[in-house]
Amino acid sequence: MKNKLATMLYGGDYNPEQWAPETWDDDIEIFEEAAINSVTINVFSWALLQPNEYTYDFSTLDKIIDKFSKKDFKIVLATATAALPAWMFKKYPDVARVDYQGRRHVFGQRHNACPNSLDYLRLMQQLVDKIAKRYATNEHIVAWHINNEYGGNCYCSNCQNAFKFWLKERYRTLENLNSAWNMNFWSHTIHDWNEIVVPNELGDAFGAENTETTVAGLSIDYLRFQSESMLNTFKLEKKIIEKYDQKTPITTNFHGLPNKPTDYASWAKEQDIIAYDSYPTFETPAFETAFMYDMMRGLGNGNPFMLMESTPSQVNWQPYSPLKRPGQLRATEFQAVAHGADTVQYFQLKQSLGATEKFHGAVISHSGRTDTRAFREVAQVGHDLKKISNQIMHTRTTAKVALLFDWGNYWSVEYMATITQDLNYTKLLHDYYKALYNNNVAVDVISVDSDFSEYDLIVAPLLYMVKDNLGKKIEAYVAEGGNFLTTYLSGLVNESDKIYLDGYPGPLRKVTGLWVEETDAILPTNHVNVTLKDDKMFTGQLVSDIIRLEGAEPLAKYASEFYAGTPAITKNDFGEGCAYYVGTRLDDSGLDYLFKFLIAKIGIPQLSTNEHTSLDITERHNGKDTFFFILNMSNEVQSLPLEFQDDQFIDILTDTHPKNVLEPWNVNILKR
Amino acid sequence: MKNKLATMLYGGDYNPEQWAPETWDDDIEIFEEAAINSVTINVFSWALLQPNEYTYDFSTLDKIIDKFSKKDFKIVLATATAALPAWMFKKYPDVARVDYQGRRHVFGQRHNACPNSLDYLRLMQQLVDKIAKRYATNEHIVAWHINNEYGGNCYCSNCQNAFKFWLKERYRTLENLNSAWNMNFWSHTIHDWNEIVVPNELGDAFGAENTETTVAGLSIDYLRFQSESMLNTFKLEKKIIEKYDQKTPITTNFHGLPNKPTDYASWAKEQDIIAYDSYPTFETPAFETAFMYDMMRGLGNGNPFMLMESTPSQVNWQPYSPLKRPGQLRATEFQAVAHGADTVQYFQLKQSLGATEKFHGAVISHSGRTDTRAFREVAQVGHDLKKISNQIMHTRTTAKVALLFDWGNYWSVEYMATITQDLNYTKLLHDYYKALYNNNVAVDVISVDSDFSEYDLIVAPLLYMVKDNLGKKIEAYVAEGGNFLTTYLSGLVNESDKIYLDGYPGPLRKVTGLWVEETDAILPTNHVNVTLKDDKMFTGQLVSDIIRLEGAEPLAKYASEFYAGTPAITKNDFGEGCAYYVGTRLDDSGLDYLFKFLIAKIGIPQLSTNEHTSLDITERHNGKDTFFFILNMSNEVQSLPLEFQDDQFIDILTDTHPKNVLEPWNVNILKR
Amino acid sequence: MKNKLATMLYGGDYNPEQWAPETWDDDIEIFEEAAINSVTINVFSWALLQPNEYTYDFSTLDKIIDKFSKKDFKIVLATATAALPAWMFKKYPDVARVDYQGRRHVFGQRHNACPNSLDYLRLMQQLVDKIAKRYATNEHIVAWHINNEYGGNCYCSNCQNAFKFWLKERYRTLENLNSAWNMNFWSHTIHDWNEIVVPNELGDAFGAENTETTVAGLSIDYLRFQSESMLNTFKLEKKIIEKYDQKTPITTNFHGLPNKPTDYASWAKEQDIIAYDSYPTFETPAFETAFMYDMMRGLGNGNPFMLMESTPSQVNWQPYSPLKRPGQLRATEFQAVAHGADTVQYFQLKQSLGATEKFHGAVISHSGRTDTRAFREVAQVGHDLKKISNQIMHTRTTAKVALLFDWGNYWSVEYMATITQDLNYTKLLHDYYKALYNNNVAVDVISVDSDFSEYDLIVAPLLYMVKDNLGKKIEAYVAEGGNFLTTYLSGLVNESDKIYLDGYPGPLRKVTGLWVEETDAILPTNHVNVTLKDDKMFTGQLVSDIIRLEGAEPLAKYASEFYAGTPAITKNDFGEGCAYYVGTRLDDSGLDYLFKFLIAKIGIPQLSTNEHTSLDITERHNGKDTFFFILNMSNEVQSLPLEFQDDQFIDILTDTHPKNVLEPWNVNILKR
Repeated sequence: MKNKLATMLYGGDYNPEQWAPETWDDDIEIFEEAAINSVTINVFSWALLQPNEYTYDFSTLDKIIDKFSKKDFKIVLATATAALPAWMFKKYPDVARVDYQGRRHVFGQRHNACPNSLDYLRLMQQLVDKIAKRYATNEHIVAWHINNEYGGNCYCSNCQNAFKFWLKERYRTLENLNSAWNMNFWSHTIHDWNEIVVPNELGDAFGAENTETTVAGLSIDYLRFQSESMLNTFKLEKKIIEKYDQKTPITTNFHGLPNKPTDYASWAKEQDIIAYDSYPTFETPAFETAFMYDMMRGLGNGNPFMLMESTPSQVNWQPYSPLKRPGQLRATEFQAVAHGADTVQYFQLKQSLGATEKFHGAVISHSGRTDTRAFREVAQVGHDLKKISNQIMHTRTTAKVALLFDWGNYWSVEYMATITQDLNYTKLLHDYYKALYNNNVAVDVISVDSDFSEYDLIVAPLLYMVKDNLGKKIEAYVAEGGNFLTTYLSGLVNESDKIYLDGYPGPLRKVTGLWVEETDAILPTNHVNVTLKDDKMFTGQLVSDIIRLEGAEPLAKYASEFYAGTPAITKNDFGEGCAYYVGTRLDDSGLDYLFKFLIAKIGIPQLSTNEHTSLDITERHNGKDTFFFILNMSNEVQSLPLEFQDDQFIDILTDTHPKNVLEPWNVNILKR
Repeated sequence: MKNKLATMLYGGDYNPEQWAPETWDDDIEIFEEAAINSVTINVFSWALLQPNEYTYDFSTLDKIIDKFSKKDFKIVLATATAALPAWMFKKYPDVARVDYQGRRHVFGQRHNACPNSLDYLRLMQQLVDKIAKRYATNEHIVAWHINNEYGGNCYCSNCQNAFKFWLKERYRTLENLNSAWNMNFWSHTIHDWNEIVVPNELGDAFGAENTETTVAGLSIDYLRFQSESMLNTFKLEKKIIEKYDQKTPITTNFHGLPNKPTDYASWAKEQDIIAYDSYPTFETPAFETAFMYDMMRGLGNGNPFMLMESTPSQVNWQPYSPLKRPGQLRATEFQAVAHGADTVQYFQLKQSLGATEKFHGAVISHSGRTDTRAFREVAQVGHDLKKISNQIMHTRTTAKVALLFDWGNYWSVEYMATITQDLNYTKLLHDYYKALYNNNVAVDVISVDSDFSEYDLIVAPLLYMVKDNLGKKIEAYVAEGGNFLTTYLSGLVNESDKIYLDGYPGPLRKVTGLWVEETDAILPTNHVNVTLKDDKMFTGQLVSDIIRLEGAEPLAKYASEFYAGTPAITKNDFGEGCAYYVGTRLDDSGLDYLFKFLIAKIGIPQLSTNEHTSLDITERHNGKDTFFFILNMSNEVQSLPLEFQDDQFIDILTDTHPKNVLEPWNVNILKR
Repeated sequence: MKNKLATMLYGGDYNPEQWAPETWDDDIEIFEEAAINSVTINVFSWALLQPNEYTYDFSTLDKIIDKFSKKDFKIVLATATAALPAWMFKKYPDVARVDYQGRRHVFGQRHNACPNSLDYLRLMQQLVDKIAKRYATNEHIVAWHINNEYGGNCYCSNCQNAFKFWLKERYRTLENLNSAWNMNFWSHTIHDWNEIVVPNELGDAFGAENTETTVAGLSIDYLRFQSESMLNTFKLEKKIIEKYDQKTPITTNFHGLPNKPTDYASWAKEQDIIAYDSYPTFETPAFETAFMYDMMRGLGNGNPFMLMESTPSQVNWQPYSPLKRPGQLRATEFQAVAHGADTVQYFQLKQSLGATEKFHGAVISHSGRTDTRAFREVAQVGHDLKKISNQIMHTRTTAKVALLFDWGNYWSVEYMATITQDLNYTKLLHDYYKALYNNNVAVDVISVDSDFSEYDLIVAPLLYMVKDNLGKKIEAYVAEGGNFLTTYLSGLVNESDKIYLDGYPGPLRKVTGLWVEETDAILPTNHVNVTLKDDKMFTGQLVSDIIRLEGAEPLAKYASEFYAGTPAITKNDFGEGCAYYVGTRLDDSGLDYLFKFLIAKIGIPQLSTNEHTSLDITERHNGKDTFFFILNMSNEVQSLPLEFQDDQFIDILTDTHPKNVLEPWNVNILKR
């Protein structure tokens, strides 16, 4: 059993190796002024630690760790493997990735190692061994940070070789392989394992952007293989660290919206604590950021996670990065805590002097001054966190609704060559999350492998790929009293992207009690009308299924097109539970209406029944106390929901009763 | 003399090798329910037929052919050469094409062979020989289907070598070559045949998209060479088949709108019957589909053609593919028959289980059910065709108007670096076709090599490239009483894209009786006014020629810009005939007005004088009877044109007199 | 001291080698009809002059030079090195450039030599030596034209090698290099000079378009190195010519808006006379063309320049190239003269018969006729120039305002990864130039290395990169009484793109008397309000600096957002002079207001106080006379400014007093 974090970390990435050691003490003084108690170091130092294959130099890192240990900072120590030194590219070109066009890359950027390069694996393990051995006993290290923001794929011949073995293990015979991928199509039949070719823009790719592929089964398996290859490098690092340190939690930082090439559901199982880098843009709606936090909490089985990176002000890499308005920093950082974070960390603590991130915001900016608005707000967050740390650490959130997110499905949906080109898995899931969020319902975003039993309602939009046993699992869940909702384009293919033959939605047909005869494509400029029972009229977009009932009853019908009068939304009693099917991309008001109906019918808990558009309302609790987080995620004053306008509540940030309004970007943490 | 098809084929592509043989009988039962009498097989089976260089395996194909022969189906047998097996790429990388960026492709996709690879040519011929020899005597085979949807180009060193010999034959001396292409430009003079470089994105290409080229003469010749190289592979296959079978017609399927790299005018001469794959999108206007059918009829000298592929419902590869509305399938399939098709064939008869076309519509869908709307409509078409087959087979259409379409011109127009970037040859031809179509005038889309003598009017918009003898041919045609119409940007270059020096429009100057002094570019947001004789005002776009008359008389003048009052449209009496010149891109109403004038003046037959926008009106006739096809190509009720509201007509589909209206998508085939 | 041009040249590029010698006399007759007195020849003849490595053939060039010498034409003789022959690519592939993706190019296009290929340098020098030696004594040669329109970059291994030595010279130690570029970022530390990798799309590039780079310092140095490498090839050619001819001026033609990869500030120092190719599109506003002419005049220290290329009618390579309206040619050619040109030259004198420029306008068009509108206008310009040549030649313009343009800054601004993606250096400079132009203020566009002392006002918008001594130079200029204006995003980095630490705007902080605490990004759809003293309201876009005054006083304040009331524009008295700072992208009316204020305050001379939008008003003068150029740059009649409605003026083109109006596109050259 690994250690837990003892107190809330406040800090973030710090790269003192870019600066003269004389400046470090000044920096630390500033950190302390902001109640910063932690630094993440050594993320990109490989070239400095190892100037050539045979030389290691830990002198600078020793000084840094020594300095922060003496100052009693918590240290998150990175393994420095996320960017390879120039000499390594020169000496061992195979460490570089080959891209989808078959081009071997050269030195540059970061996150650039081929996960199947034996040279990389050897050099990486040697480095990690030296680091782990050297610093394992330092008690200030509260977490190991392996590599950084994993992502991307390699398409080199080493990967091709490894892929063959992976496939052989998965499919055993070429006959199975040819059948799984339907390789008699377009003369693709393989007669020898050596005929396997990795996805390549000059091979099976096509389409205007070359993003489509002839054999999606192969491409999806390749993504699985790459995600596993990369995870394997993570596990190799982890194993080395655990040789020297069995107590300190080990993690890597997840990122993205969500990161497509990396199957976080598998990766999460290997993390001692989930860590996430959060970079909403100026136009990201608050619910989308919340969706990612709820996914991180879901991936960690409800355990608190680390907000490993976030920006204290602006970023340099988004198209536009306006200033955060006064108070906005505090609201956005506390949003992570509200959804389950036990740390608040920034990229970065000190702004760099050169290279591409020099205009990325930092706690210490180029001016070095602390008499600035930005610094004052950073310090306020630090002091706030210090105040609440003891009460909030390790508290949890209970959600009775889960939203399924599956990486295999993600990949297959976006490779799907079908009647519309507008399939964006994340965006279509957002439809459903948003409706729940706006109704102040706590949601766990979970994987299809998670335990369903604690949830009153499982929402699985666009579940195109249904893995082997998943159909049965859903049937069992519903039969035992669960509620299950799915949509258009679900239940079509198995794990190899091969069609289920027994009529759409395949393995979900029995539980939903219906059969989809055909599916219309709706142009982006068009819609179909949908009426619910009481004649309320909504619209559907994207696609509309023409549904034939096999036991289900209609909840809504189409009200236009030649299929007017046929079912658009259905409900099917199945065992003790019930399955719902939504045949079109229902508009927001339609989904709101549908979920209000489900909340009432199923008895799903709501934290507030207030209609709002700018508040983020969540709770965290321990055995005894519940803490309600009410965040104003807007630049305008908002009323506090009526449920909380009550003097039985105390705001633990201010030790006062809540006011009836929240100032712009204000945060209340109410304890009853 | 080859056999003709005996009855109308109804069927299409079927890939039983993707399925267990036990399922085939069930499939056949369904085909028979839909009156399907034919299957196209073996299109993509090479990898299955030849698992490695030294092994052939015809066991599955034997069973398939045997099965369908016993069931008395007509078989269209493909040669399986359209997609190469994986082992061939591995063993002989030169079989793969090199793309315009100089990159050798790897295994994948289809339509991927280099036409100048000796390895490919050897292996292809061996395969075709085995297939032809084995099945030539089977009497159920009604057509041989060589390869599939030829297209694309290769830029490899084998092609470069072959190109040199091709050029040497064409130009004989380097002096001729340098002169033809104007190679003293930008230091391009060639002093040795080995200095010839094929077009390459890293060479002579430029422009934002690298689609422009320094020496268009070279690039156009390369397209000629590639089209001929590919045609040569077709001819090699054909010759082998004819060793064993001199009776059964041999063809390949044309496709595209139209397919740019493949000079169908040359290819058509080698086809025993023209075959076409038709895939209009949901937004393709009916006249554009008709344009392609009239081109196929024109390419086949007026003989009936095969509709080799079409979709029974949706396709997977268009951005959006809404459902066909009730009745729409029947109208779209009959449109091909109305314009001269003697077959109605689908891609495909059974929906595949995996890979990129698994959501392409099929007669047998994934559900396998026949109690569906889509299947009922397919069956209706089958029974309709069976009913009319005897009367319609081998009937022909007589057109007195021809529209010239030339591939050399197509290529040169789209390489033309001139005063506007908006030159889309096909789109600009559509202007003219549409005006004729809307006036219910039968049109043959023909090549510049066709016989002009039977036509009352030849329309040749944007005839930029005028081949050596074409000017004289046009003069002779007009002198003998023909009517000829051409437009802006015509008569500028010869076959090598070299300017005719004697003033625009070069070889057409004498027959049109005018000289174009300069040409204005009109911005897409702008237009020039044009007035015809009776003060009707129209607009011109794209370009406007400033015309100086040399014998011609103005039919219309510009009415804006500094050249207001100068001629915009002219007429020139020449011998017994007359030549017309249109100096700008006249708007639709202007072209309608112009063609109504020409129809009246020349006496061009119209099938109806009704104004309509949604009817497709054509005729097919034998020595005795004429069959009028009146198709409602819309989702609304349309009036039948007055000419056909007459009880002397019988609809041979229903054996009743026509009603005064056509229901949405309804089809009448009226016999007087 | 080199010769000066004796008379105004009127002529341009002529490629007689593309034509039979028999046609040359006819061409010359036409030239003379248009008062053309000069030809530029031999620009792209390398392949013709040298059919293989060991053979030279000057027979055709001899004939051409002989012909024009006998006809007493002035000859601009090019060195023919701008496009390499095909045989050279074949024999020495390293002469070809390697592109940013690492791809070696093949024969094609032009402007295609690697400047660090020893093969290229050897063959180029041999050719130039032969040409210079052969023709140096010809007295008709009035200028040598080296190469053509230099531009572009090479990324090959020869360049990589040369770059290492260049860096070693610049930075001396790896420590300095690592520090200058901040290479401890993302593990980029270099431990050996051989680890240097040139910029490569497969290396440090990223972003959606791969146009961003990890280490901008490296990429900017590479652009410097490439510009110098290319300049070195120019200097090699020049040195060879000067072996044989020390009198005739030597130049190359600048081009572009402005040409980004070529640091014309360095190049200008090596030119005996500045030459420029001017190709405004139909939508280029007149002030943008004027901006480039004023830059050419500025680069030449105020000396007259050559208008080396322009089009007599249309061009073939712009998206749309409408006809010039009657009179428009004359106005556009005279605009160059008005801003300082002493030649008017066209590309080209005769339209080519084939290849990509065959539809580029020319004096002799494909028809060969002179009874055309276009030819008449060309001839008019010729006769006009002949009339004024003696008076205008060698006259100069005096500007009291300079606008700084720096190539290092250009590069760094466009690599800047910051809070907005909308940084277009040229466009943002245009804001300022336009305000001055509309107020009829003469402006020199000069480099940061120019002498500032003669100017009353130096305008330096977006001076992001401030080279080592530039801050001090500006301080000295202001201290001695100069006025200096700069803007948002200035003073941030040094020459290696490394941040100045002492608070923005770094080395400009003292002279501007302020500190920029933070900078907001303003979305393209948004703006911030700005009020000037008298409550006039303007808007700001792009970014807005939050300014803290350190001595400066506010001239304008923000009037919206949370920083409303803080300074937006400031003024700081410094020594005898004054520095202005503009914190946001002020709208056009705001800049007009600001410059009217500065003109009044500083006493900057205006040629007219008339508000106009379509007149270009400039002056040229010698010791005695001043010539006012009043050009109507529009298709409408315009009033002559009141200042010039005075009978003391004579129009030297017509020898009459000016009228009160200017006809469309009319030109007045008024002498008092």
